[in-house]
Amino acid sequence: MSAALGLRKLFARPGIVRVIGVHNAWGARLGERAGFDAIWASGLELSASHGVPDADILTMGDLLADIRWITSAVPIPVIADCDAGYGNASNVAHMVRLYESAGVAAVCIEDKVFPKTNSFVEGRQRLVSIAEFVGKIGAAKAAQADPDFMVVARVESLIAGYGLDEALKRAAAYVEAGADAILIHAKDKSPQRVLDFLSAWSGPIPVVVVPTMYHSITGAELERAGAKMVIYANHGLRAGTQAVMEVFEEILRTDGTTSSEDRIAPLNTILELQGTFTMLAHDARYGYGGDSPDSDVPLNSGRTAEK
Amino acid sequence: MSAALGLRKLFARPGIVRVIGVHNAWGARLGERAGFDAIWASGLELSASHGVPDADILTMGDLLADIRWITSAVPIPVIADCDAGYGNASNVAHMVRLYESAGVAAVCIEDKVFPKTNSFVEGRQRLVSIAEFVGKIGAAKAAQADPDFMVVARVESLIAGYGLDEALKRAAAYVEAGADAILIHAKDKSPQRVLDFLSAWSGPIPVVVVPTMYHSITGAELERAGAKMVIYANHGLRAGTQAVMEVFEEILRTDGTTSSEDRIAPLNTILELQGTFTMLAHDARYGYGGDSPDSDVPLNSGRTAEK
Amino acid sequence: MSAALGLRKLFARPGIVRVIGVHNAWGARLGERAGFDAIWASGLELSASHGVPDADILTMGDLLADIRWITSAVPIPVIADCDAGYGNASNVAHMVRLYESAGVAAVCIEDKVFPKTNSFVEGRQRLVSIAEFVGKIGAAKAAQADPDFMVVARVESLIAGYGLDEALKRAAAYVEAGADAILIHAKDKSPQRVLDFLSAWSGPIPVVVVPTMYHSITGAELERAGAKMVIYANHGLRAGTQAVMEVFEEILRTDGTTSSEDRIAPLNTILELQGTFTMLAHDARYGYGGDSPDSDVPLNSGRTAEK
Amino acid sequence: MSAALGLRKLFARPGIVRVIGVHNAWGARLGERAGFDAIWASGLELSASHGVPDADILTMGDLLADIRWITSAVPIPVIADCDAGYGNASNVAHMVRLYESAGVAAVCIEDKVFPKTNSFVEGRQRLVSIAEFVGKIGAAKAAQADPDFMVVARVESLIAGYGLDEALKRAAAYVEAGADAILIHAKDKSPQRVLDFLSAWSGPIPVVVVPTMYHSITGAELERAGAKMVIYANHGLRAGTQAVMEVFEEILRTDGTTSSEDRIAPLNTILELQGTFTMLAHDARYGYGGDSPDSDVPLNSGRTAEK
Repeated sequence: MSAALGLRKLFARPGIVRVIGVHNAWGARLGERAGFDAIWASGLELSASHGVPDADILTMGDLLADIRWITSAVPIPVIADCDAGYGNASNVAHMVRLYESAGVAAVCIEDKVFPKTNSFVEGRQRLVSIAEFVGKIGAAKAAQADPDFMVVARVESLIAGYGLDEALKRAAAYVEAGADAILIHAKDKSPQRVLDFLSAWSGPIPVVVVPTMYHSITGAELERAGAKMVIYANHGLRAGTQAVMEVFEEILRTDGTTSSEDRIAPLNTILELQGTFTMLAHDARYGYGGDSPDSDVPLNSGRTAEK
Repeated sequence: MSAALGLRKLFARPGIVRVIGVHNAWGARLGERAGFDAIWASGLELSASHGVPDADILTMGDLLADIRWITSAVPIPVIADCDAGYGNASNVAHMVRLYESAGVAAVCIEDKVFPKTNSFVEGRQRLVSIAEFVGKIGAAKAAQADPDFMVVARVESLIAGYGLDEALKRAAAYVEAGADAILIHAKDKSPQRVLDFLSAWSGPIPVVVVPTMYHSITGAELERAGAKMVIYANHGLRAGTQAVMEVFEEILRTDGTTSSEDRIAPLNTILELQGTFTMLAHDARYGYGGDSPDSDVPLNSGRTAEK
Repeated sequence: MSAALGLRKLFARPGIVRVIGVHNAWGARLGERAGFDAIWASGLELSASHGVPDADILTMGDLLADIRWITSAVPIPVIADCDAGYGNASNVAHMVRLYESAGVAAVCIEDKVFPKTNSFVEGRQRLVSIAEFVGKIGAAKAAQADPDFMVVARVESLIAGYGLDEALKRAAAYVEAGADAILIHAKDKSPQRVLDFLSAWSGPIPVVVVPTMYHSITGAELERAGAKMVIYANHGLRAGTQAVMEVFEEILRTDGTTSSEDRIAPLNTILELQGTFTMLAHDARYGYGGDSPDSDVPLNSGRTAEK
Repeated sequence: MSAALGLRKLFARPGIVRVIGVHNAWGARLGERAGFDAIWASGLELSASHGVPDADILTMGDLLADIRWITSAVPIPVIADCDAGYGNASNVAHMVRLYESAGVAAVCIEDKVFPKTNSFVEGRQRLVSIAEFVGKIGAAKAAQADPDFMVVARVESLIAGYGLDEALKRAAAYVEAGADAILIHAKDKSPQRVLDFLSAWSGPIPVVVVPTMYHSITGAELERAGAKMVIYANHGLRAGTQAVMEVFEEILRTDGTTSSEDRIAPLNTILELQGTFTMLAHDARYGYGGDSPDSDVPLNSGRTAEK
């Protein structure tokens, strides 16, 4: 079963789909172990992990290299946050071919100008025209090889300061262009505008939400309001950052790690999650190498001179 | 149809399969246009293109990056020259997963010690034990996802100074381990030892030959002798190198390019082979972008303040 | 001041140097903010972050790509954990050129067979001969361009089951070969054997220790025993892993993130650490782009036809 | 001496500087051997080598990976063709930091909209405003670490259909913004408009020309007209392409390579240019490895159990 078909099945089954944001293979593996349904390769997390702003500073090539490790680390579907598509419709077509080859189940593109700025940053939130974004969606759908591959159209109208009408108008146009799902993004503390969108929405494709700012609403409540997928987009990075800051401070303060040992994962957990013991079993079966450094036929013995 | 299935079909059809060595997507496209059946992603060519010796100086990651461009450039199957497998059986298993994801139809691994040295270089031609290489083949076959994916076992006995018996013994062991084809390599000026191998060979899998040094023999003659595939492994690089050296010299000697213009491909040929005109047609259909820099709704007009 | 000179100065100043292990630019930035003197680009952490065992499954190329982001993220020196050097002396020379170009201050190579296995894993801990490792150190020193660049020789004798004599003999040979520092590794719960090594050590170059297993000893105690640098090699990954596992579980259990909000870093901390606000200031000075989509001269107006 | 200083010296010495376009390390090495003064990492050649149009389909990350191999292959300066800078002024600043770290002597950015289209393609030649491009130049100059690093501002006015006045106006603004050289591009068969530009030019920085289309003019004539650098931007690719097409056709037609052997470089030339023999000398000095697979101390003999 392809990753894309796996994602299609998640959308087809009853109930809301719960997705966790990650920035590397490790996060993906932790997300899968925890029980999330799918992985969100988060542009914010990926940018941060490289130490740069979430503003198209990383190139598609940089991101894709990381995403290949993510897809290879877990059997559950990976949805790639593809920002504004890294250029124009030709860039989007090229991107879809590469991301599909990389094993992602879906790409998500947003209707902002390239280079984009993270949606939670004040200012610089500018949209492309509907016509331009419709072209990108069409190019993406035409480029995919597997019919199950999905293109999520992310509507940034509410982020950019427009109202519900513009958001609905755009979402309708994106459906028409072939989008497989709509992601409606918002950064209000209240979920109200997202709920209004869901209430007004009558389109034939599922809606995805990202309750980073309006986190008081539960997944079950979002499901009842009509959302089909909820993405917890950046909580892994934020959890890890807090813990690392605290432990780093403690190591320097206590001049050692002993006092931190009970709040950090044991080394054996790390080794196991890396697949070390699986590899040792593989070694036992297929050989570790280095044990037999040369041919069975002794060197310089019964061996002709090299030609 | 997967690339691997495409290669299986080439092996299944009558006649010898003709394969051309390349080091980038461009070479692959030229090889496909010329009419070759498949592409050999040559370790020698790839190393040279990066300016380093063919001695495992490039890492698997470096090579894989190039190979992804090669597979994406042509519809015909790509066979990857994977040297000694870049480590032990665990490295081989990891390699097979990555190369298969990259769309190659087959990997070829040789029974030399890592780091290997190019077979045409005098000295340093050391073999691993049969047991170690059998482990690598087994690991490769166990790692592949697509049953059509092929593992070519390259026998370096003749290169390393051993005789026909050692070559046949090794080839038989590699068949037993699951290899899908045997590549028998040699660097004599005469094809005799390769012909002896083919004559003595009764194994159930096809044999591949690389007549770089013993080039006087034709493909048809190799076919009659029992070879199923012939690889012209490095002639593209060597043709290009000669021409580039001559034209570079001429530009400096004549203080311009006019005298070289009739021996270099026209710019339009380059643009066409790159897919420029296909892209312009794509632009015409899906949009070039930049034409409509902002939303249909005018900026600062009926737009609420950003939240 | 080059990174290498920065590291030289740390070794030259009084007191023990405290180094923190990381696997990406983000960890490096957190380490620098916390006050560590230098960064250890940890092979264990890097492998884990890609979801693979610490056993030379990642290639040098993979690691180098990550390390470039790490060096570009912080002004403090970065020491790269380079495992067994990724092959033979030629590979080591190539590696040093690349790592030096990537801005690392020092590489650390260990005297184990390639492919190596993480030192904390039981079994498969095999050493190369002293002669072979001396060749690698010599190749590394000959390859560096900046005289300040450092090569740390990691002695794995205690890990591989040999005694103190072998460790001292090897360390002495590595000094002779040109090593700039010795890293003595051990995995006992007690620091005793490391203390014995330090006590017996009379070499002219500093000694580095990694108290992962024997963590009860403090930095100050290690300093008094004669160590010059202490590396806390994998505590960031382990702290982050524990926190991420807990928060992921809590999100699914509580069907939302509200209850986790006070144990995760605020979004603004992430944005700030990424350099988002620095970038906005840069935009304000040099332009954000997209505001002026075409030439000052109007399109199709006073513009000649394209040639 | 840094690469950037090397380029400064070329600009400072009498006479025109002759630069050759390449797409990989191999081409750079051939260019250096032929006697060119510097290397142009050509966007057209690089795109073609990856099998994609020259239209910002390759990302900066893709290009940079190739450029690192180019700079490491030759001691002469490398000038990187950086298209429109891959985004806005923040992207340009990030780019300059990465390219400078990669050892390039200069970047060249052009005043076209991202994504750009190759200048020899009809249509889609749109300029950014002077203000926007001035911001990019300022950002580039502010980002460089080495004061010798150079930023070449490429004026595409003539390509985009504007006249000499617009070209001169833009060039003047770019000088004001800090550009270190002006590249005036044109695609007429006649050199006249470039000669007019050179004649009218009185700026304090050197002018670079690219006589791909107007190739009838010699370097000496361009020098007399006031140009300081001439780039032969894509002749290596075109020479190689023609030769490879011919040899590939001949191999298939003659069913072998014998008839082509005298028009392709001998294998030994390839091995020598790769540095194979230098590597063998290195091996002889520092060891080839694999000869001594384990410790001097015999395995399982006087070795304690692993802890």
